Amino acid sequence: MSADLAQLVTAIAQRARAASLVLAVAPTAAKNAALMRLASLIASSQDALLAANARDLADAKANGLTAAQTDRLTLTPTRITQLVESVKQVAALPDPVGEMLEDTTRPNGLRIRRVRVPIGVIGIIYEARPNVTIDCAILCLKSGNASILRGGREIFNTNTAFAALIPDALRHAGLPADAVQLIPTTDRAALNTLLKLDQYVHCIIPRGGESLIRFVTGNATVPVLKHYNGVCFVYLDAAADAGLAEKVTVNAKTNRVSACNSAEQLLVHRDVAEKLLPRIARALIAKKVSLRCDAGSAAILARENIPHTAATAADYRAEFLDYIMAVRVVDSVDTAIATINRDSSAHSDAIITQDEVTARRFLAGVDSAAVFWNTSTRFNDGFEFGFGAEIGISTDRLHARGPMGLRELCSYKFLVEGNGQLRG
Amino acid sequence: MSADLAQLVTAIAQRARAASLVLAVAPTAAKNAALMRLASLIASSQDALLAANARDLADAKANGLTAAQTDRLTLTPTRITQLVESVKQVAALPDPVGEMLEDTTRPNGLRIRRVRVPIGVIGIIYEARPNVTIDCAILCLKSGNASILRGGREIFNTNTAFAALIPDALRHAGLPADAVQLIPTTDRAALNTLLKLDQYVHCIIPRGGESLIRFVTGNATVPVLKHYNGVCFVYLDAAADAGLAEKVTVNAKTNRVSACNSAEQLLVHRDVAEKLLPRIARALIAKKVSLRCDAGSAAILARENIPHTAATAADYRAEFLDYIMAVRVVDSVDTAIATINRDSSAHSDAIITQDEVTARRFLAGVDSAAVFWNTSTRFNDGFEFGFGAEIGISTDRLHARGPMGLRELCSYKFLVEGNGQLRG
Repeated sequence: MSADLAQLVTAIAQRARAASLVLAVAPTAAKNAALMRLASLIASSQDALLAANARDLADAKANGLTAAQTDRLTLTPTRITQLVESVKQVAALPDPVGEMLEDTTRPNGLRIRRVRVPIGVIGIIYEARPNVTIDCAILCLKSGNASILRGGREIFNTNTAFAALIPDALRHAGLPADAVQLIPTTDRAALNTLLKLDQYVHCIIPRGGESLIRFVTGNATVPVLKHYNGVCFVYLDAAADAGLAEKVTVNAKTNRVSACNSAEQLLVHRDVAEKLLPRIARALIAKKVSLRCDAGSAAILARENIPHTAATAADYRAEFLDYIMAVRVVDSVDTAIATINRDSSAHSDAIITQDEVTARRFLAGVDSAAVFWNTSTRFNDGFEFGFGAEIGISTDRLHARGPMGLRELCSYKFLVEGNGQLRG
Repeated sequence: MSADLAQLVTAIAQRARAASLVLAVAPTAAKNAALMRLASLIASSQDALLAANARDLADAKANGLTAAQTDRLTLTPTRITQLVESVKQVAALPDPVGEMLEDTTRPNGLRIRRVRVPIGVIGIIYEARPNVTIDCAILCLKSGNASILRGGREIFNTNTAFAALIPDALRHAGLPADAVQLIPTTDRAALNTLLKLDQYVHCIIPRGGESLIRFVTGNATVPVLKHYNGVCFVYLDAAADAGLAEKVTVNAKTNRVSACNSAEQLLVHRDVAEKLLPRIARALIAKKVSLRCDAGSAAILARENIPHTAATAADYRAEFLDYIMAVRVVDSVDTAIATINRDSSAHSDAIITQDEVTARRFLAGVDSAAVFWNTSTRFNDGFEFGFGAEIGISTDRLHARGPMGLRELCSYKFLVEGNGQLRG
């Protein structure tokens, strides 16, 4: 059984590798034609997609999933329409493949060009949301990569129904049907095989919670691009504008509490804490945020009878993904920087200040993927950065950091032209 | 014992992480001052370095190493002088840190800049050459990365003597001494700990043979940048110029047979094999190269009594690193491309042709880090590409592909400036 699965997954990877070589040199028009066909097929298959999803929802009920878990699985006509739109949007994005990154001529006359090419074969390991199969397939396809998709057990019927539409779209455009393949089992043994097929698969992207990412990282020999959680900070400096501090902090915390780029941690300079903190706290509490405070901030809030609780040590490194914020008073921008570099997840951190020198010090010193000055951490996002779409927000420092768009789904190669130059 | 080692290595990594934050914002002048001081210290420590190396050589003799193995370990005054020069050369290279990669302003007024920053903490795992400690330390230092060095047992005394010079050079320039640390043991348990310290170490670069790289890849949770072997091809097209084909093939094969960018495999288009192959074969044999032939090429050479042997299947994917070349006749450029994409290590592959259309097809279709037209695969090298120095030639497709210079030892981060913009 396990040997059969290994054989099955190996064959999928070999076919993906072969397809990737065709896709790497496929014209943009063919990739876009496949995407537009896929958009039509999704729209015209709404009933079948909803029926497949209904089977997953029935299984969820039978297995006693919570309402929140079930909601994450649920496909609706509105969500299908949004997916159709997102496929069309990716078709409209510029093709990253073939872009000239550098073009130099060496003293010996060699012309060396560095051009963007697809990575090759990308494995995507994901959990239970019904949009991920299509989201990932279309970004890989547009960037010229073959993809191997392995979704969660809870959403297997829905994923299978979506994946069944893709070969037709590919063939319609003259592209190899093996360019997008769903692994037809959620058996762990199949996943374990995939994670070690480094001769055919060039990159694994796990999309899901920390335990999934740790499992993949711990078992893969294929390189992994990670999208870990966000423990994001807002630091209100001594020279912060009070109104700006209030609105940015509230936005960073409450605009969407479940997002990885939402703020979880608030630092306030001690010179302004007395004046600023009550105002910010009241604004957060008005949005239903609970505050978990250090001694310094608790003393200030207590004097004004503003509700709060005492923070634990764990709170200062927590990703709450909820209406909760930990609060600390710090004595300088350097302490803020050191605190963030120690306790944040190096994802998205902001300073609010009117002092440019302090801002520059913070921007340089905070070792995070995106550092914000007088604006919300919520902007760390592929759409907001103008990438058009994203496969995730990388917390790695190799290859891609921050939002990963089509460009970050590519590698490069060197093309070297000569007329008989020899190495001396 | 093993727990003690884990604690030792963890403490090294924690100190490296702290040092990396200082180094990331260190001025170029300080990094260069440390490098110039190091160059002086190496030059003035020649006797101590040679004495340390003599202890390694005595151990090598006692352990029965071969002459070739012992030669690889040997430090000489000439090699020390070369090392001093290479340190000065890295000091003279431009600092990659802080380079602005993009600067855009979004419709909402947010200014988003992408700037080059160090990766952070880099672990280098290497084998027995005496120059690697300094080579890697200086490239990491110049690119603002803290480094943790773990060299081979056979060269431990030499490595320790080199590493002992570095803290003085760093302190002299006001930089943290922990920015470069040698692990003071070659115990495997220490290495195993290092490979899993992903909370402090951001990247591992193994420099050595395939078995070392496979061990590191199989055991690391820290991302690994790999520098695998080169199974490099030269394809002589139907439209090849005979003289150019001869000199480039001989250079690619014999300029330095032990290099990863040396050619191991020769493909010849069948339309010109009869005319071209005897000439190329004689030129290679004159340079002491043995030819291992397929049936088609063997028949041609046999008719002219040119020495050769029959190739085995393994020869067609072999990295000989020796005066040996496998030879096959192919029926088209497309067969050449498919053969290379199947049998090469995607490192460095060349076409020799006067036909530009064929050359463009080959350059686009061959899925390798560097593809050459009418020039030698031996040019896939950081110095030859103008990078100034390299830490290796990456065979990965993520982060860096081909020569890795200072720029490839960096990551980037986003700096986002606003005036109160909120996410809607």
